[in-house]
Amino acid sequence: MKIVDIQELTVPLEGNLSNSLVSFAEHNVSLIAVTTDVMRNGKPVVGYAFDSIGRFGQAGILRDRMIPRLMAARPESLLDATAENFDAQKVLQTIMRNEKPGGHGDRAAAAAALELAIWDLNAKLNDEPAWVTIARKFERAARAEGIDTYAAGGYYYPNDSLDRIREEFSGYQDAGFQYFKMKVGGASMKEDMARIEAVLSVVGDAGCLAVDANGRFDLATGLAYAEEIGPLGLRWYEEIGDPLDFDLNQRVAQTYPHAIATGENLFSIQDVKNLVLFGGMRPGKDFFQMDPGLSYGITEYAGMLEMLESHGFSRRCVHPHGGHLIGLHVAAGFELGGCEAYPGVLQPFGGYPAECGVGGGVIRPTDAPGFGLEQKDNLRPWLDRLTGRPC
Amino acid sequence: MKIVDIQELTVPLEGNLSNSLVSFAEHNVSLIAVTTDVMRNGKPVVGYAFDSIGRFGQAGILRDRMIPRLMAARPESLLDATAENFDAQKVLQTIMRNEKPGGHGDRAAAAAALELAIWDLNAKLNDEPAWVTIARKFERAARAEGIDTYAAGGYYYPNDSLDRIREEFSGYQDAGFQYFKMKVGGASMKEDMARIEAVLSVVGDAGCLAVDANGRFDLATGLAYAEEIGPLGLRWYEEIGDPLDFDLNQRVAQTYPHAIATGENLFSIQDVKNLVLFGGMRPGKDFFQMDPGLSYGITEYAGMLEMLESHGFSRRCVHPHGGHLIGLHVAAGFELGGCEAYPGVLQPFGGYPAECGVGGGVIRPTDAPGFGLEQKDNLRPWLDRLTGRPC
Repeated sequence: MKIVDIQELTVPLEGNLSNSLVSFAEHNVSLIAVTTDVMRNGKPVVGYAFDSIGRFGQAGILRDRMIPRLMAARPESLLDATAENFDAQKVLQTIMRNEKPGGHGDRAAAAAALELAIWDLNAKLNDEPAWVTIARKFERAARAEGIDTYAAGGYYYPNDSLDRIREEFSGYQDAGFQYFKMKVGGASMKEDMARIEAVLSVVGDAGCLAVDANGRFDLATGLAYAEEIGPLGLRWYEEIGDPLDFDLNQRVAQTYPHAIATGENLFSIQDVKNLVLFGGMRPGKDFFQMDPGLSYGITEYAGMLEMLESHGFSRRCVHPHGGHLIGLHVAAGFELGGCEAYPGVLQPFGGYPAECGVGGGVIRPTDAPGFGLEQKDNLRPWLDRLTGRPC
Repeated sequence: MKIVDIQELTVPLEGNLSNSLVSFAEHNVSLIAVTTDVMRNGKPVVGYAFDSIGRFGQAGILRDRMIPRLMAARPESLLDATAENFDAQKVLQTIMRNEKPGGHGDRAAAAAALELAIWDLNAKLNDEPAWVTIARKFERAARAEGIDTYAAGGYYYPNDSLDRIREEFSGYQDAGFQYFKMKVGGASMKEDMARIEAVLSVVGDAGCLAVDANGRFDLATGLAYAEEIGPLGLRWYEEIGDPLDFDLNQRVAQTYPHAIATGENLFSIQDVKNLVLFGGMRPGKDFFQMDPGLSYGITEYAGMLEMLESHGFSRRCVHPHGGHLIGLHVAAGFELGGCEAYPGVLQPFGGYPAECGVGGGVIRPTDAPGFGLEQKDNLRPWLDRLTGRPC
């Protein structure tokens, strides 16, 4: 069994929205196809994946460094002990050959796209959903029931209004969501508080609404917002300051009585360990949101979870960033607390096919082999274009 | 005044050598030329620079993200108040537009290559060496005297021997070096101690020899080496564990009585601040080695120095990683403690033209405008190839 071809394509994100810090109009995503010599129903088995939403495609690092390393490897060096699956850890070691320690940025997303495609591939070789493969590999029971999810929205739009944001969250309720998240920090604190009140007037329970500052605040502003939103008792206060400013996070955690969430912009076990050691995160209260698609993939993610548990945190406090099918399978396979959804935006990667069914605040992976990306109507044409044949 | 063209080229590093963790045979470097519409002596003024040695060229990020952002900017938005120089900070903000916080890896090197080219350009517009431009901009006296340097070598070669390493360091002495650095961690501790003893038999004073583990050690190994080399009183013990493992660094610093050095794999002010807050670095004793060519360039470097000084560290404890002309100008312009040299290896970027004169353990920038990369005989053909005309 061997890999015969690897293709990558940079796909633009649809939409024109902003959080407090960046516009997504310029962002794009690397889509990957790893084709094997294994034939099923007259077609080769292909593993698909992508790095995650909200940063950039990584065509250069993939083409110049990682794909050549993987294609140059002896095929048997990439297989697990059964020789019936690829060994994701060996694949990761191969694509990271001669990379120096530290500097967990763009390359972590490039490596993730490739490593995740191996999981899609393995699941298809096993003819099962990826979450089943993940759970077996890491000896988890997996979560067969629905995965808790929340609608992440409340971005800043050109010509925005309180009516628009109320309508937006009303739409999420109509779509079956029970938990919600909105942006803060892209307007004045007064305007942001009005936006929060507008959303609360729709969703009711403040314990169902989280706010996300996308790392924008300095310590003084982070503390000022903490004081202002404290009495509301929101679900969580997300990415208050620079994601690497562990000191700031720890200082806010000392005074803010409710949950803090962060981690989507930490891309290695070591960075998350630093958050745990120095960031003041409180077991039983705070949330972690690392995204396997931005942080070397599922192998590294398993290490992050092990490290968190060794420091007294439950994996149920982990809700991966992303809002897409890969995050859903990761949450189900690792028995995490839940996963995001970005209804209607960040297409063609965001969101879930109708078969996943949002209702009662939960969502379910389908029975499709792998991550089931082929079930996503607006992604399928890109998958076909990637390999030059129908997926 | 405006930028009319930006070219980048990925240049392989010559040589076949390894530290304890990676082979350099696969590494390469992005070389940049920023061409303006300003004519001098019938030729356009061109700023040259490169990201640093030891990681990778960044063609993808430069081509896909940063160069298009810079070329799309209004020309006047990139100039300083005098309109006679480009504003490096504005250039950096432009090339980082829509980049999220965190993830300081490959993009930090890509941004650095462009930002450093702006400094070469400004210095040429001012008809002065880059260190003079840097010193004026950041209101430093600059170091007009020679810059302390040391010969960094002692890599692991195929078919290595104690005779070879003795000859190597004897050669550095003959070339006028008085301080030295060698690798550890690529062999057993017993073999490494024999290598250290071999080098000490040549260089004599242990206070003139540093050792570099390149981030390879876990805590137990780092402590074991610390105990073994402790009695020697070496100049410094470098990059003991993972560069982001601040806890490990702090634990070794608690027991190792002599200087520790680290920082070459930290690529932002925030990462270095975390090292200061959590890594146990000791003012007046330990060394910092951040490399502007890997960490967004000189603007970010100035911020790192300001942050270090605000925490009680002297800028004389900063010796930038790199071993090349750009590092030399940075050290001279910012009045740092010194800079590296890698005699004979990591070409065509490593080392200094003969005009810089190594002697008495110091080295001097020449009077050439900018970084003087044009004076480096084996680099000049690459500069010519980059623009398609003689530099």
